[in-house]
Amino acid sequence: MNYSKILNQIELELKEFPNNGKVASYIPELSKVDPEKFGIHLYCISGSNHSFGNSTERFSIQSISKVFGLTLAMQLLGDSLWKRMDVEPSGNAYNSLFQLERENGIPRNPFINSGALVISDILISEYENPKDEILKFVRRISGKPTIDFDEKVAQSEKQHGHRNTALANLMKSFGNIKNEINQVLDVYFYQCSLAMSCEELAKAFMLYANEGTLLESNEQLLQPIKVQRINALMQTCGFYDEAGEFAFRVGLPGKSGVGGGIVAVHPEKYSAAVWSPKLNQKGNSLLGMEALERLTTKTGLSIF
Amino acid sequence: MNYSKILNQIELELKEFPNNGKVASYIPELSKVDPEKFGIHLYCISGSNHSFGNSTERFSIQSISKVFGLTLAMQLLGDSLWKRMDVEPSGNAYNSLFQLERENGIPRNPFINSGALVISDILISEYENPKDEILKFVRRISGKPTIDFDEKVAQSEKQHGHRNTALANLMKSFGNIKNEINQVLDVYFYQCSLAMSCEELAKAFMLYANEGTLLESNEQLLQPIKVQRINALMQTCGFYDEAGEFAFRVGLPGKSGVGGGIVAVHPEKYSAAVWSPKLNQKGNSLLGMEALERLTTKTGLSIF
Amino acid sequence: MNYSKILNQIELELKEFPNNGKVASYIPELSKVDPEKFGIHLYCISGSNHSFGNSTERFSIQSISKVFGLTLAMQLLGDSLWKRMDVEPSGNAYNSLFQLERENGIPRNPFINSGALVISDILISEYENPKDEILKFVRRISGKPTIDFDEKVAQSEKQHGHRNTALANLMKSFGNIKNEINQVLDVYFYQCSLAMSCEELAKAFMLYANEGTLLESNEQLLQPIKVQRINALMQTCGFYDEAGEFAFRVGLPGKSGVGGGIVAVHPEKYSAAVWSPKLNQKGNSLLGMEALERLTTKTGLSIF
Amino acid sequence: MNYSKILNQIELELKEFPNNGKVASYIPELSKVDPEKFGIHLYCISGSNHSFGNSTERFSIQSISKVFGLTLAMQLLGDSLWKRMDVEPSGNAYNSLFQLERENGIPRNPFINSGALVISDILISEYENPKDEILKFVRRISGKPTIDFDEKVAQSEKQHGHRNTALANLMKSFGNIKNEINQVLDVYFYQCSLAMSCEELAKAFMLYANEGTLLESNEQLLQPIKVQRINALMQTCGFYDEAGEFAFRVGLPGKSGVGGGIVAVHPEKYSAAVWSPKLNQKGNSLLGMEALERLTTKTGLSIF
Repeated sequence: MNYSKILNQIELELKEFPNNGKVASYIPELSKVDPEKFGIHLYCISGSNHSFGNSTERFSIQSISKVFGLTLAMQLLGDSLWKRMDVEPSGNAYNSLFQLERENGIPRNPFINSGALVISDILISEYENPKDEILKFVRRISGKPTIDFDEKVAQSEKQHGHRNTALANLMKSFGNIKNEINQVLDVYFYQCSLAMSCEELAKAFMLYANEGTLLESNEQLLQPIKVQRINALMQTCGFYDEAGEFAFRVGLPGKSGVGGGIVAVHPEKYSAAVWSPKLNQKGNSLLGMEALERLTTKTGLSIF
Repeated sequence: MNYSKILNQIELELKEFPNNGKVASYIPELSKVDPEKFGIHLYCISGSNHSFGNSTERFSIQSISKVFGLTLAMQLLGDSLWKRMDVEPSGNAYNSLFQLERENGIPRNPFINSGALVISDILISEYENPKDEILKFVRRISGKPTIDFDEKVAQSEKQHGHRNTALANLMKSFGNIKNEINQVLDVYFYQCSLAMSCEELAKAFMLYANEGTLLESNEQLLQPIKVQRINALMQTCGFYDEAGEFAFRVGLPGKSGVGGGIVAVHPEKYSAAVWSPKLNQKGNSLLGMEALERLTTKTGLSIF
Repeated sequence: MNYSKILNQIELELKEFPNNGKVASYIPELSKVDPEKFGIHLYCISGSNHSFGNSTERFSIQSISKVFGLTLAMQLLGDSLWKRMDVEPSGNAYNSLFQLERENGIPRNPFINSGALVISDILISEYENPKDEILKFVRRISGKPTIDFDEKVAQSEKQHGHRNTALANLMKSFGNIKNEINQVLDVYFYQCSLAMSCEELAKAFMLYANEGTLLESNEQLLQPIKVQRINALMQTCGFYDEAGEFAFRVGLPGKSGVGGGIVAVHPEKYSAAVWSPKLNQKGNSLLGMEALERLTTKTGLSIF
Repeated sequence: MNYSKILNQIELELKEFPNNGKVASYIPELSKVDPEKFGIHLYCISGSNHSFGNSTERFSIQSISKVFGLTLAMQLLGDSLWKRMDVEPSGNAYNSLFQLERENGIPRNPFINSGALVISDILISEYENPKDEILKFVRRISGKPTIDFDEKVAQSEKQHGHRNTALANLMKSFGNIKNEINQVLDVYFYQCSLAMSCEELAKAFMLYANEGTLLESNEQLLQPIKVQRINALMQTCGFYDEAGEFAFRVGLPGKSGVGGGIVAVHPEKYSAAVWSPKLNQKGNSLLGMEALERLTTKTGLSIF
């Protein structure tokens, strides 16, 4: 498969593509990004790398970081994690309170905001310094020790985090948040503020394409069964209420963030990361989804 | 991979498994089945067959038939099908009216009852004799001309079909059912009443494991991209509100029915069908899910 | 209190009132009415009558008829009626399926469509000829033997009654409809098609203003406690999801219909009926509510 | 009407009444009350007083205080108040987030928690010292300068106020809370902690029975139209999701609190307050509703 040629075609085609998406503006820091940024990085299990555009520029990965939090929590708690949340698509918006209220404060899955807040709560209970552990893990799997939180983004989230504060308090009223609300929100907002490039994301997500083993060092960090389950969760729940659409059009497990990033994983083949800040109405990168759909269509390969 | 040996192990292990599921009783005909029936059939892309138990006995495939209806409608309408329904997990029970009411009579996906009723409506509009076309298609892809509807089951469904009648009328009030309610329900109930064995189901679903080409005749019936999309829909929406659980535990696209059948597809590897009438609380075969989970765990292979 | 003078003032004021309401169009028959019709009739417990405009012209009373159905069912079943429905405001639209689905087919109150359908079901179980009994009752309390169903309206409702058919089937699936769906809908649609004038409605509702006793013959038809309860239900549930607004602005128990009629009752003082076909967004007569608000404001009297 | 005799009968009858209600326990302070307390006070517009039991003992009036907050906000803002909340029954639990989420942070009415939080927010914006103004108002209308907040109850509420914090944050995310969350909750919890006796409550609510004029000084504090509207709101929304039941059984405007108190108002006749801490499943005083139902049944008088 000539991935470089395919990426070139996609780059050319999407130059003409009418992108009427909108940059996320719910926090001021995110709205400052240049809306025309566009980059992709593809990392093959053979070790080859392919990219175009702004693929080495860091951006706010936002909800993509929920995969890292989930991975740490699965390592820490094993199956008892699933007493605190479920593994089902929600069928509702990512920040909806409705279902949480009816289901006694148990989030539908780890990738909606409520689920990720419970993950933050778990990391606080289990780690002395949860934010450090998150950083350590991400730096390790991506091989980039300079990856860091974006302090400004984290602070901006805090100032506009009323909806997340509502979610955390609702779960606390049901006993599904154990630590102080402010502490939970702090870890959650810092985790979301991680700044990474497409290249770094593709490297990090190779862990999930390579059955839990770091490709470069051949070190096994995660059991294959856990990786399969994380991939399954990305497939069914990774795109808010557009998970079906992504499975339907792209056909790969993946995770998006409101910063305009999307990662996707083809197990035993490659990991890919794309970035374009303009979002469609469901909050996923418009050009990002388009690019990944063309990638799986042109290669003729999806997991299905 | 020694599939026969793996199936033997699964058969042995599950003999001991405490099966506290319950046979579907919402229609009298379904409750007459022997609850201890248990069979599996695995059909490999290499042409080999593996099975145990009551794998050649026919049972009511119920919602598994929705995959056949969807396939015909996709062939007939192409992408315009998706104006009539969406491709998202519902996050609600399969017969729920709530979401349909809020979303103007547009079903979330083709595998919940409302979506399948719209499919029946489409088949009526497009075919002179929709029930014959369904039969013809199923007989062709399974290679078994004796497959037929179960008249008693179809009649029993009709007599207890108030909930489906409510769904059809609600959609009609929004203009998303074009034909007579009774005609739509007739096609729907007959389709659900199809009686097939595990062996026949595995043969039929090889179409979806083999990129749309009949394995034995090498005849291409469906474009690969359509097969990928049907598989994606099975993955995200094939198990009512337990789709996430099935992806998480089994990791294959699949579809279940309240008759206790489950089919699963490993693209380019195999199709499998299992039957055990006792259902878990979400309406899926308890032993069936258990058997398929062991299959992908023991082989170490899922699509993820 | 000089009611004639007050009505004159209201008539003058409302001539200038910008009426941007819309005539009900969900069935063709209702949309044929002259939108400029406007009439009111006030019937005092002293025996005096006051009116203006098209107060003697008959129109389709629609949901106002639900009060008559409820009265008959309360007489027939007593308190056991409340096993089949509740007495609470729904907080949802009058034809919503959502709450009914969550609450096992038990309608919130007798004035939303689902509740009225259960009432029709009860009348069928209890009476040999329920439609005759409804007519008999209405003719008796209004003293007008010529009051009748409007055959065209009833047929038109039947042809567009998919939403009500959905409600009836949903309740049947929960066992809260005992008779055939078509029979229940027939009684329901005929009851809704009753044609009466403001004058006739005011006479009929004097029963509820006069503690259950016919004003002219002094015959007691209903116990005072039952009348109080019917009035309480009109107050809390008589205006779909605008019951609070009517209580807030008008301050009297009342019942509206999509034909543009509203009746209101001031216990021990008067009954009033108003008709203007243009409806506000919640489905209640825009001018009708305005007229009744002015009536209670100008008299300085409400029940509160 | 011999009210003393009627109260004596009610006292006797209810001694035998099986009270299987439960004292509110969501905050520790409330659960400390003696569950057998029972008192009533009736204050007639003639100036006569009637009572039995623990009618002079103060208890936590909780949500009854929402009537006082609403009265102040109506005086301050006039009709513009209704841009911030509606006047409709919610059809949902008093602390539900579901409806608030769907309706863009606009509470259904001022008596559910969300509505009362918006009222607190308004008092903070309008008054320099809102808690003082609440106290001043209550002391004035009841004629008892010793009425005060219960510091322990207020603190206990704060420590267990996660659900209310969730409501306030959700509304803040929609822009319907203007001040700091903690400040809003502080005013809200203090208001709820007011401790009053049945006698004091009956005196205070005479304002609403007497068209807005203080009975003893003949001073007019509120316009009659405002009193009518507050009474209408108590009628349609004063009892959480049991407002219909209270209208149906008792037939008077009223307001309950989880401390076990209920006030009811018969305009131009009397105000009544009853206290019994054991609550029914909907959170209203079981014996209190029973007592008031007997009061209106025995007198044969309700507003309907």
